[in-house]
Amino acid sequence: MNGDYRRVDEDALRSHTAAVLRGAGMTADGAAIAAGVLVASDARGIESHGVARLPQYVRLIDSGALDPAAGPSIERESATTALVDGNNGMGHVAGDYAMRLAIAKARDHDIGVVTVRDSNHYGIAGYYAMLALEHDLIGISLTNSSPLVAPTGGRERMVGTNPIAVAVPTGDGRPFVLDMATSTVPIGRLEVYARKGLPLQTGWAVDKAGEETLDAGEGMEGALLPLGGVLATGGYKGYGLGVAVDLLTGVLAGGKYGPLIYGLWDATNPSDLGQFFLALDPAAFGPLEEFHARARDLLSQLTGGDRAPGYQEILVAGEKERRAHEDALAHGVRLYHSVVAALDELGARFGLDHLPRRAAD
Amino acid sequence: MNGDYRRVDEDALRSHTAAVLRGAGMTADGAAIAAGVLVASDARGIESHGVARLPQYVRLIDSGALDPAAGPSIERESATTALVDGNNGMGHVAGDYAMRLAIAKARDHDIGVVTVRDSNHYGIAGYYAMLALEHDLIGISLTNSSPLVAPTGGRERMVGTNPIAVAVPTGDGRPFVLDMATSTVPIGRLEVYARKGLPLQTGWAVDKAGEETLDAGEGMEGALLPLGGVLATGGYKGYGLGVAVDLLTGVLAGGKYGPLIYGLWDATNPSDLGQFFLALDPAAFGPLEEFHARARDLLSQLTGGDRAPGYQEILVAGEKERRAHEDALAHGVRLYHSVVAALDELGARFGLDHLPRRAAD
Repeated sequence: MNGDYRRVDEDALRSHTAAVLRGAGMTADGAAIAAGVLVASDARGIESHGVARLPQYVRLIDSGALDPAAGPSIERESATTALVDGNNGMGHVAGDYAMRLAIAKARDHDIGVVTVRDSNHYGIAGYYAMLALEHDLIGISLTNSSPLVAPTGGRERMVGTNPIAVAVPTGDGRPFVLDMATSTVPIGRLEVYARKGLPLQTGWAVDKAGEETLDAGEGMEGALLPLGGVLATGGYKGYGLGVAVDLLTGVLAGGKYGPLIYGLWDATNPSDLGQFFLALDPAAFGPLEEFHARARDLLSQLTGGDRAPGYQEILVAGEKERRAHEDALAHGVRLYHSVVAALDELGARFGLDHLPRRAAD
Repeated sequence: MNGDYRRVDEDALRSHTAAVLRGAGMTADGAAIAAGVLVASDARGIESHGVARLPQYVRLIDSGALDPAAGPSIERESATTALVDGNNGMGHVAGDYAMRLAIAKARDHDIGVVTVRDSNHYGIAGYYAMLALEHDLIGISLTNSSPLVAPTGGRERMVGTNPIAVAVPTGDGRPFVLDMATSTVPIGRLEVYARKGLPLQTGWAVDKAGEETLDAGEGMEGALLPLGGVLATGGYKGYGLGVAVDLLTGVLAGGKYGPLIYGLWDATNPSDLGQFFLALDPAAFGPLEEFHARARDLLSQLTGGDRAPGYQEILVAGEKERRAHEDALAHGVRLYHSVVAALDELGARFGLDHLPRRAAD
């Protein structure tokens, strides 16, 4: 394995993360939930949204911008819907609560939609959509986020990378799990490319004048492009999807939206993010087993198709992450060495032992 | 105006189209609905899905592949959901019926989801989503379609251009209406470029070996690329969105899906397409006026941002089509001269007069 990475037991990582969050002021229940989401992200191979962000969450708490002890409360509710106030607590806690509420409504009424306002960064959108899978429901999770994307025709950062997550059960432990930002790439990609001095790909970014750029440094001063890139390659669609997410989250829930949202990890103000959670029972439309069978059939036809040059296989959404999780269960969660060091340092502040590395290291 | 185009009165065009469809065997009610959807498409400037397709619908009817007299029926129903059988009638009729059913459920229970199976090509997805606007509801409409898109890593046409439409009311007659295929471009774009001998843009198509191509003829023999293009520019996201649409339409409703769907306008078999309609009441989450105000504020902030070079303005989804409709109301619907000729020819078959051109011609 890559020498820059360490392997850490998933349970040990979760315990350590939860202990840090309790030390920072979260309740035991809240810390367990947030740690679960963060570690699930790393276990699924999505390092950008995992425990590497723990120091930034703690900084938000330390600064007073985020209330670690706050829990969500229901502001409005009907049989099929609810508006939840995140009360400026951790987004993971509000998200977990809201998605479980949507699931309960879907179990009773076939569908449930719950929105959240006054929330914070909630990690990977896919985590919440996947909670529906345990109940054989379809799950959708959306969040708005700090403005980083230029609208088609614009040059300012006005729209978040506003992700869309859709989880569909298949009955065989290999669900379809789409979890995608509506920008072509995350801002972290530009940071990495700028650091390494690599050229960007087309469709990733514009410079501060609004012209497409392949220079990572110029892109960092400019804005991300929406999925599809510039107008001619369909960027207006990614822009439209990003705005649709904003309308269904911040605008619908009554939180902040678009350019009103503060910068990512800005510790001077509450984020007031909006989120959207939907659960839908496929059994409302016909026998569940038949739905599962059709879903599996579609996915296996896709993966069984003729491959393009240079591809070993055709994947469906969620499969790469499922394999990463299997690998993490067998060999430990893969963490960059500097992330492990940062976790140890944070742990020391709260009187915790160093994270135990797996023997394989 | 462009000499290749004619202007036709919207009402006259709707009457003519409905008369052709009645002549072909549709009921008066069904023909009025289908004509309404087709003409709305042209009026909104989306020629590819408008009355230009009328000869193809009539061909499907003539061949027996589509039953013009069939109406939709409810197969399963709950307070918040329904499964509708399109009975292989016109997709527009089933779509209109299903969306209105979803709207009725949303008015009673805040949200409604209706799926349709055994349907046909239903025109522009946005039409159905927009039906929700009249009731100040948020509308979503999805359909699967004939396979034209290669999955990321594949080279066969396996996924439809499966559109996503989202309509959000704003209270001022300028709603947000996203209506986008999940491929970068429609197949018709390649046809036009091949005819004109123009090179394609990056991210549009692969050749039959699965390599990206800028040659329109090679693309026509190959497949469309999903929104985002190849892997490095985020094409796996457009591919994932297309599959998500298939899962929520054909797979959920029990119709055909993915590569099982016959070719577009294939007159040898019923299409058995699947569709999905959702209506959601924003008033369930807070006062409607405040929701409208936030939505308008977001959209006006976006359009008011600093522009990139070469752009006269920043638009939001649906605005271009709204302006086209205003223009059509004032000056008549803009139709390509060969489309007018084809409509006259079809009309003659059913004993209709020629479509009256507007005086401005």
